[in-house]
Amino acid sequence: MTVIFTDIQQAAERIKPYAHRTPVMTNESLNQQVGAQVFMKCENLQKVGAFKFRGATNAVFSLTGEEAARGVVTHSSGNHAAALALAARNRGIPAYIVMPINAPQVKKDAVAGYGGQITFCEPTLQARESTMEEIREKTGASVVHPYNNESVIAGQGTAALELLADVPDLDVIIAPVGGGGLLSGTSIAAKGLKPSIRVIAGEPEMADDAFRSLQTGRIIPSENPKTVADGLLTSLGNLTFPIIRQNVELIVTVSEAGIIAAMKFVWERAKIIIEPSSAVAIGVLWEKKIDLSGLKIGVIISGGNVDLARLPWQ
Amino acid sequence: MTVIFTDIQQAAERIKPYAHRTPVMTNESLNQQVGAQVFMKCENLQKVGAFKFRGATNAVFSLTGEEAARGVVTHSSGNHAAALALAARNRGIPAYIVMPINAPQVKKDAVAGYGGQITFCEPTLQARESTMEEIREKTGASVVHPYNNESVIAGQGTAALELLADVPDLDVIIAPVGGGGLLSGTSIAAKGLKPSIRVIAGEPEMADDAFRSLQTGRIIPSENPKTVADGLLTSLGNLTFPIIRQNVELIVTVSEAGIIAAMKFVWERAKIIIEPSSAVAIGVLWEKKIDLSGLKIGVIISGGNVDLARLPWQ
Repeated sequence: MTVIFTDIQQAAERIKPYAHRTPVMTNESLNQQVGAQVFMKCENLQKVGAFKFRGATNAVFSLTGEEAARGVVTHSSGNHAAALALAARNRGIPAYIVMPINAPQVKKDAVAGYGGQITFCEPTLQARESTMEEIREKTGASVVHPYNNESVIAGQGTAALELLADVPDLDVIIAPVGGGGLLSGTSIAAKGLKPSIRVIAGEPEMADDAFRSLQTGRIIPSENPKTVADGLLTSLGNLTFPIIRQNVELIVTVSEAGIIAAMKFVWERAKIIIEPSSAVAIGVLWEKKIDLSGLKIGVIISGGNVDLARLPWQ
Repeated sequence: MTVIFTDIQQAAERIKPYAHRTPVMTNESLNQQVGAQVFMKCENLQKVGAFKFRGATNAVFSLTGEEAARGVVTHSSGNHAAALALAARNRGIPAYIVMPINAPQVKKDAVAGYGGQITFCEPTLQARESTMEEIREKTGASVVHPYNNESVIAGQGTAALELLADVPDLDVIIAPVGGGGLLSGTSIAAKGLKPSIRVIAGEPEMADDAFRSLQTGRIIPSENPKTVADGLLTSLGNLTFPIIRQNVELIVTVSEAGIIAAMKFVWERAKIIIEPSSAVAIGVLWEKKIDLSGLKIGVIISGGNVDLARLPWQ
């Protein structure tokens, strides 16, 4: 099983009534700074503030009526939890969200605000998975993994589909990589529309497991990574890794200083709130480790959920 | 001499090749919070990050060739200085900018970056005006006042013109008021397109000189105001006051806490950077001193220039 281009086209139709068609923004100062023409696909302006809403919505609306009635379940402390809760509410079905007890209050509030039914557990992967499994057995809910799930990958690819519809002559498309849902969906959509396009990923130097996985040819798990890009702590999955291996030219690692500088520059000049994970994709251009000068470059701005009381340049 | 609707239409044609037609954004969370449908005209996404570029561009391109050749001059430590410098560069003429020696480095850099020729002076109004007068005498440059200038007022009105073209059925339009250039231009444009529209202004409680001026029927100068909305410290001028008296239904004062809360909410939910002066306009809705529930409300988001190292909620 994998994901193919038509899955993404179908996902686009499926999520259309629920997701925003986000704008593509350009900024002259940014272009000058990086020496290229940058087209930012603003998923920070997506519902729940992140591309995750696309995949969650596609997953929820891909269920049969019978499956859907039993609800969906996931464990997540991040954007996927909020996205799944809202997608489920839009279909009128329950979303069971397992969250670690130490998740930030703002994230708990967001999930609850979208009608998610939260079960708290100890902050270990084992506790998260066993708690989720208990709920699944009791309710018969469908598990929606944040990235290692075909419907989720197809949904995430719809952002690139829209970006290339708006700017068909892109030379390169860049997305950040954590678990690889966004990157693999983006790569299938982009290559499907334009086989010659170059797909490049940005990854924090301090969480470079995907970079090393591509180098070694097997999935290297992320081990206790410490990076400001808190959306990119996860490891590749057995669905996302082969897609990325096939379609992605290069994973470029970005320093913490580069992530923060790129983030601050976009805030200051483009006047939009982007989260550190999005700044990793801009950081590929910012640090100029590879020469992309003069090219037309699409960047998936993955989200804009930031704790404004704790900004990384303070 | 005053400004009429056709001046704004002509200004729109004049600035079209240089200014962005900024987007109009909506946000479901904001609508729920304030109980109305809000349409944000995003001048934070304008060139130089503020509506000021419209007025400055209209002023610069309204000059005759002979006048223009001698350049333009102003004193300002804010967005107007950067806007005038860029507008002048676009016409290929000199911009002489008088700035107080204690202006923030970031503002000096911005003006210099746009090619403005800066003369520093002591940080008093008298020093600013006498320095500007010396330059004017020496160069023959045309003075472009930041708000008490017909071309500037007409230029600022073009934002409302675009907003109402995009959303013709607005019930109310809200702008912040400092010197009144944006508000008077907005009111002429809005009333010209839709005589029944209600024009309301937001002003910081801590700098409520325009509010008191409307109450008393004469211009009350702003006296040493202390507000986070640093773009709204100025007093009304003899051009802006009569326009505002005629067209503006009400000036609503907004508390410092309301300005900051509205600003933070827009950052968190709409994911755009707005400056405190813009939050004053949102603050009118936020504090609900007047009942605008259920209405369609246009808000001019005046700018997005913020010192990210000094945010007001920290």
